[in-house]
Amino acid sequence: MITLSSDFGSPYPAAMKGVICQATDARIEDIAHDFPRQDVRAAAFWLTQTLPYFPPAVHCVVVDPGVGTDRGAVVVRAGEHALVGPDNGVLVPVARELAENGGTAPDAFEVFTWAYDDPPSTTFHGRDVFAPAAAAVHDTGVAAVETRPETDRTDDYVALRFPEPSVDSDGATGEVLVVDDFGNAVTNIPGEVLADGFGGAIGVNGRDAPVRRAYAAVDRGQRLVTVGSHGNVELAVNRGRGDEAFGVRTGDAVALSL
Amino acid sequence: MITLSSDFGSPYPAAMKGVICQATDARIEDIAHDFPRQDVRAAAFWLTQTLPYFPPAVHCVVVDPGVGTDRGAVVVRAGEHALVGPDNGVLVPVARELAENGGTAPDAFEVFTWAYDDPPSTTFHGRDVFAPAAAAVHDTGVAAVETRPETDRTDDYVALRFPEPSVDSDGATGEVLVVDDFGNAVTNIPGEVLADGFGGAIGVNGRDAPVRRAYAAVDRGQRLVTVGSHGNVELAVNRGRGDEAFGVRTGDAVALSL
Amino acid sequence: MITLSSDFGSPYPAAMKGVICQATDARIEDIAHDFPRQDVRAAAFWLTQTLPYFPPAVHCVVVDPGVGTDRGAVVVRAGEHALVGPDNGVLVPVARELAENGGTAPDAFEVFTWAYDDPPSTTFHGRDVFAPAAAAVHDTGVAAVETRPETDRTDDYVALRFPEPSVDSDGATGEVLVVDDFGNAVTNIPGEVLADGFGGAIGVNGRDAPVRRAYAAVDRGQRLVTVGSHGNVELAVNRGRGDEAFGVRTGDAVALSL
Repeated sequence: MITLSSDFGSPYPAAMKGVICQATDARIEDIAHDFPRQDVRAAAFWLTQTLPYFPPAVHCVVVDPGVGTDRGAVVVRAGEHALVGPDNGVLVPVARELAENGGTAPDAFEVFTWAYDDPPSTTFHGRDVFAPAAAAVHDTGVAAVETRPETDRTDDYVALRFPEPSVDSDGATGEVLVVDDFGNAVTNIPGEVLADGFGGAIGVNGRDAPVRRAYAAVDRGQRLVTVGSHGNVELAVNRGRGDEAFGVRTGDAVALSL
Repeated sequence: MITLSSDFGSPYPAAMKGVICQATDARIEDIAHDFPRQDVRAAAFWLTQTLPYFPPAVHCVVVDPGVGTDRGAVVVRAGEHALVGPDNGVLVPVARELAENGGTAPDAFEVFTWAYDDPPSTTFHGRDVFAPAAAAVHDTGVAAVETRPETDRTDDYVALRFPEPSVDSDGATGEVLVVDDFGNAVTNIPGEVLADGFGGAIGVNGRDAPVRRAYAAVDRGQRLVTVGSHGNVELAVNRGRGDEAFGVRTGDAVALSL
Repeated sequence: MITLSSDFGSPYPAAMKGVICQATDARIEDIAHDFPRQDVRAAAFWLTQTLPYFPPAVHCVVVDPGVGTDRGAVVVRAGEHALVGPDNGVLVPVARELAENGGTAPDAFEVFTWAYDDPPSTTFHGRDVFAPAAAAVHDTGVAAVETRPETDRTDDYVALRFPEPSVDSDGATGEVLVVDDFGNAVTNIPGEVLADGFGGAIGVNGRDAPVRRAYAAVDRGQRLVTVGSHGNVELAVNRGRGDEAFGVRTGDAVALSL
């Protein structure tokens, strides 16, 4: 199986599918092609929430603001999965998750860089570089790129780490990592800080909000703080948009006071 | 085959696909993941217009504003199809259609409730409850949930019926069920009321509009009343948005005067 | 394999998938269903950029503002591919590409018209006419429609050609064919006009802009002119929207002065 992820919108991903279908009979599944544009961190977050649910597969991930520059290309082996994409850090957090899920240490993933030939376009390496590489890795393994002379396992790759939240006995501070399509503002603050708070209230950027396990535990249109499916603190509104009600956007600071 | 429907947007449905791919080799087809958010009636309408065109399949449908509360979970057997989702009524209208298409009475569908174990999340039962159930029902039949001790065929489920239009010799009154992506306002008024009107005009909320079979039968930008592919009266504009031209939104009243 | 393309948005394409799944086991891949509404030329452009990357397939393409009128239906044989859709010109440019890719002259594609039976709807021939035809052509070849009495190879079909740009030694004039989801304004001006200009600047509608091979070759938020993956001149902004920065929309004139 090959999965596809990008910020390409439509219809560019279809050309990638065509290229893959020409090269291999692998099943193709789309993860998403509407990741926030050029937001490597958001894509990395969503991939950590999604790819670990898949069986072993080759994941082709192209959020690539540096397309056409000299940024590198990598294949990452993590557990029984392989990841293919530009060397801009997007693959690293999910590689850690996949390695850990595969029974090894989180940092047991392996990164291989390879020097790709000049592709037909300087603006669409998803089609011209990464889709063919994903098909090749699917059919013949990471060796598909390893056999290229300039390819090597490396420790010299772009790493991306999510910002670390700060947690103490009075509360926690962090930031909004992404806003989902419902308008829920997903923070980097671990849900554990709410453990004793369900049924009560917590201060969010200076204003109280109820802490509940389900959106519908408050009246329609009311704000709440909950733990999302990712395990992080989430600012939400029952049947409404949490980002608007809490006045936050991606990257904004969030301070919780118990 | 397993089909997926939700109001999740992106990328949450991909996690459901991963869960299903881990459990079964079933083919997966997306119906839609952009149903109007938390609008159980709109989803139910679109499903009646879509699922009956499919061969026998397991349809996993998660429009679930009550996620994390004590709302139930159901599997519905209708004709050769099975439907899996929360017990909020969304499955009932399409179950009637599928039962009838399967050669039985519309109310010959069977509903089974089951008590699911506490899932990892309280906010994403699509991933944690319904996707695994859909995979299990696909591979082993409704028995996958029937064998759970608390599972039983039941007549105690949430039913959802579309509002009944009122039709008489002077016209009809109803309401807008959904607005499609073209801007066509789809009503609950049966197309039969227009049967003698094609080529003429009809009053819509007090203002006349031509009745035509094709959008292009009026000039570009002009309003028309037609019968959509669902068999219902539809308010449209040739190459434009009917909802805006007729000034209506989902749930608004529509009065037709012959 | 059957591919699906339309301007239907969601969820109408799912009904087409159901119809096809009932008729054949063919793999189905979506190209896009959000082509600009009723914009036959835009769809034709995107298809020329996408379908040639696919292995031999039946491509069902329904951008059909004339649905329900007496516009015809065609099947086009081009190389090893077949195209199915309304006779409104949308298939012709991609047929030329597929014929040429298949090793024949660009105009060696063959068009067959057929008289379809009255379908259940006058507004959704994608479901009622073209999806069944695509499934039949997939399983039994173009003969699926050829055997209909009223079907014939014809030279009497709607042709669509993209507007011709004008290129001379001082520059070029053309127009915006489409704006992609990043906001890049794709023109009909061949990229060759920029061949000697990379690293320098060019006048665009009277105002200079740098000519670069990669978006990231200019600072974030800055304008640039580049050659897109389609080989045409593209007006772009690094991590921003070119259409807004250059003040152009689909159909607008673009004058380049060297």
